[in-house]
Amino acid sequence: MTAKPSSASYTEMVQVVLPNDANPLGYILGGTVMHLIDIAGAIAAHRHAREQMVTAAVDGLQFLHPIKVGDLIVLRAAVTATFTTSLEVEVRVYSEEMTTGVRRLTSHAYLTFATLAHDGRRPTIPPLAVETDEDRLRVAAAEQRRAERLARRQEQVVGGTL
Amino acid sequence: MTAKPSSASYTEMVQVVLPNDANPLGYILGGTVMHLIDIAGAIAAHRHAREQMVTAAVDGLQFLHPIKVGDLIVLRAAVTATFTTSLEVEVRVYSEEMTTGVRRLTSHAYLTFATLAHDGRRPTIPPLAVETDEDRLRVAAAEQRRAERLARRQEQVVGGTL
Amino acid sequence: MTAKPSSASYTEMVQVVLPNDANPLGYILGGTVMHLIDIAGAIAAHRHAREQMVTAAVDGLQFLHPIKVGDLIVLRAAVTATFTTSLEVEVRVYSEEMTTGVRRLTSHAYLTFATLAHDGRRPTIPPLAVETDEDRLRVAAAEQRRAERLARRQEQVVGGTL
Amino acid sequence: MTAKPSSASYTEMVQVVLPNDANPLGYILGGTVMHLIDIAGAIAAHRHAREQMVTAAVDGLQFLHPIKVGDLIVLRAAVTATFTTSLEVEVRVYSEEMTTGVRRLTSHAYLTFATLAHDGRRPTIPPLAVETDEDRLRVAAAEQRRAERLARRQEQVVGGTL
Amino acid sequence: MTAKPSSASYTEMVQVVLPNDANPLGYILGGTVMHLIDIAGAIAAHRHAREQMVTAAVDGLQFLHPIKVGDLIVLRAAVTATFTTSLEVEVRVYSEEMTTGVRRLTSHAYLTFATLAHDGRRPTIPPLAVETDEDRLRVAAAEQRRAERLARRQEQVVGGTL
Amino acid sequence: MTAKPSSASYTEMVQVVLPNDANPLGYILGGTVMHLIDIAGAIAAHRHAREQMVTAAVDGLQFLHPIKVGDLIVLRAAVTATFTTSLEVEVRVYSEEMTTGVRRLTSHAYLTFATLAHDGRRPTIPPLAVETDEDRLRVAAAEQRRAERLARRQEQVVGGTL
Repeated sequence: MTAKPSSASYTEMVQVVLPNDANPLGYILGGTVMHLIDIAGAIAAHRHAREQMVTAAVDGLQFLHPIKVGDLIVLRAAVTATFTTSLEVEVRVYSEEMTTGVRRLTSHAYLTFATLAHDGRRPTIPPLAVETDEDRLRVAAAEQRRAERLARRQEQVVGGTL
Repeated sequence: MTAKPSSASYTEMVQVVLPNDANPLGYILGGTVMHLIDIAGAIAAHRHAREQMVTAAVDGLQFLHPIKVGDLIVLRAAVTATFTTSLEVEVRVYSEEMTTGVRRLTSHAYLTFATLAHDGRRPTIPPLAVETDEDRLRVAAAEQRRAERLARRQEQVVGGTL
Repeated sequence: MTAKPSSASYTEMVQVVLPNDANPLGYILGGTVMHLIDIAGAIAAHRHAREQMVTAAVDGLQFLHPIKVGDLIVLRAAVTATFTTSLEVEVRVYSEEMTTGVRRLTSHAYLTFATLAHDGRRPTIPPLAVETDEDRLRVAAAEQRRAERLARRQEQVVGGTL
Repeated sequence: MTAKPSSASYTEMVQVVLPNDANPLGYILGGTVMHLIDIAGAIAAHRHAREQMVTAAVDGLQFLHPIKVGDLIVLRAAVTATFTTSLEVEVRVYSEEMTTGVRRLTSHAYLTFATLAHDGRRPTIPPLAVETDEDRLRVAAAEQRRAERLARRQEQVVGGTL
Repeated sequence: MTAKPSSASYTEMVQVVLPNDANPLGYILGGTVMHLIDIAGAIAAHRHAREQMVTAAVDGLQFLHPIKVGDLIVLRAAVTATFTTSLEVEVRVYSEEMTTGVRRLTSHAYLTFATLAHDGRRPTIPPLAVETDEDRLRVAAAEQRRAERLARRQEQVVGGTL
Repeated sequence: MTAKPSSASYTEMVQVVLPNDANPLGYILGGTVMHLIDIAGAIAAHRHAREQMVTAAVDGLQFLHPIKVGDLIVLRAAVTATFTTSLEVEVRVYSEEMTTGVRRLTSHAYLTFATLAHDGRRPTIPPLAVETDEDRLRVAAAEQRRAERLARRQEQVVGGTL
């Protein structure tokens, strides 16, 4: 399988924030943003792997500023690392004020997507092309997040209180 | 302000998974689950604080098993720790097979909600009643997650690549 | 078939009333409440019967108070009587004011669900366990509603004016 | 106030049943039909009263046949009786098979709508013009349903079990 | 195949404009109107042809007046011409003010629908009955629009700039 | 007012086609595509004008190929001409097959957006920068479409048959 650069999965989405995406204060719902982050991440994952994939995990999702009804929400996503049958995507969310064009970073997350088993085995996916030192740093950070995620998965199944 | 126990915010939601919540394979979309997690978490947060709050962060969200169209999705949420003007909620997601009643844990997450500023200051919220050793362990774990989250917030704003 | 108690089908749902559930006055639409009543009733019906069922009738649905955007809508449902291939569910709807936690009964209804024919016959469903005098009164009231419903069904098909 | 005939409120709606209106078996959800019945009834109520009104009750709602995805759902509604600050609407629902045009009556209901208080009093609405013997029979039946409904409202608030 | 008159496909739809159909100014979204025009047109097309059809083109869609939340949107559609395996439908959109009943023409469009190939050939559809001079003028205008549409289709594929 | 190049309004949107966007055959609804075309066009219009605008007309909308559930729909939009208080946007729609990445042009349209009156007058918008011969040809074509559109608007109001 030929390695693919991060640019092969780069995805940009834009939406107008409408009243039915918002809470009674006129700000977009956190859940609506999460839904869009999942779609943007899934498109990037599919553009890299060209396989059916499902969301496996979301890490470090933060909401830095609210986005109000009438503004644009812009999402950017690209693959940051690959792991045999899964991959990690970084998603960044920006607001764009409709009347001024001013953009602000409003959210950020790392999503993991995994291939689905056919006939008892999960298809492997093409590796990410890693060329510069910056690429190598990004992959190392993704591997660190993956190790933490696998550790947490164990804990949660055991230690849940609800 | 009087401390409130975790049971004061306990919330249970249930939904049928319908075709418009699903991908073409007939499994619920990750983004739909996230949307429901945010709503369940927000209800628990409001039941504790009785103040307007917005989603500030999501940590350690994992998808352990897919849920198929026609099954039930059951969400349970309760406050795990409070921090002056914000609080953390644990949300657990279960599938319930329609024809057998079999339940499985399918997702798990910690969400942080923060109060909104009125006249330049954010309202404080009632503390969580902490009584048993188990309560104390849960709060300590929440404080650990909060420290990691604040560290990451700094990094992300600086080191983004999209 | 073993009889099941009413508690086996007990279902509680909760939702935030969002702007897209509401009319221009900011109150939840009657049709949105009906839709949620049908879902809550269907979940209770399936939890009792563990069979595919469809809505056959709705009786005595009343709207006592409006629910406004930003409040919670809480639905409770449980089986009240069973009739070979159909059953009756009682659904109660409450508003919960977001900022005070005050709850009010806002709607009430009885729904009938029926099994679907497979290979020319409709599957039977487990009987409801009837133990106390109160249980017996509840079943008698349900049978009275059923007799009225069957009488009305005849009339309507004959006497329609539209 | 001038009396208005039933034809002044006559309303016909038609919709294609799409996959997101249906259950996993491909039949329209009971709750989706109820939602449409409420909208058709509300339009008829407003066309008669030309006042803001809300749904107060639904009586005798029956589902006679399922409607499948791809077929049309046709709703007809008209005012059947008026009562100072409220009125009753009859709604009939038909399926229309897309490929043959065959129509069947699938549901039937009576809905009551009430005006909303402005400055402490609820506006009155124009009377329904009653001219033929058939009109008089229809109004008598509506008054009978209203008496039963008011009796039930009392019971339910008292006798609820959920 | 027997010719069918325009009245055989006549379709009327009505909807309340709800907050989730509207932009932040409280006016219905152009895209929501387009969506309803497509549905009304598709119902008229199916009522004439009784075959599966898809939208092939929209011509001359104009928005003359905005429609505000709380008003009714009324759509009327009927077949204006048939062409072997496709047909043209005219759709007119009216607003109806909820509190006064005042109606205004707000949009107008011509839509073309085409049958889908089964086993390599597209089914033909019944001709439109053309009887009066007015019918003949209407068909001639439809044929003129069709010639312009086919010419444009060629251009666009060649000359696109995006 | 400073002229702005077409690139200032360039907008790209991408969406996954989900089951609730599709007809029972699994193809995206024409009306869903129209809705997305309107949103993409509106974003491009606002990015140029930075004023509140509404859809005034849609010309030459064609559907060349169906898009199936599970594929991506990609929309590109940019301003093609400006006219004092309105402007024209070209929108092109592509399908992108999820498993192969193959892209096809599926729809094309020209939309006109107009500013809304404040205090009795409609705000003017910045002119489009026209520099190359190709730019001039594009503006000439847009002016031709506008002349045809204004002529048609007159006809339709007069000659309607529904």
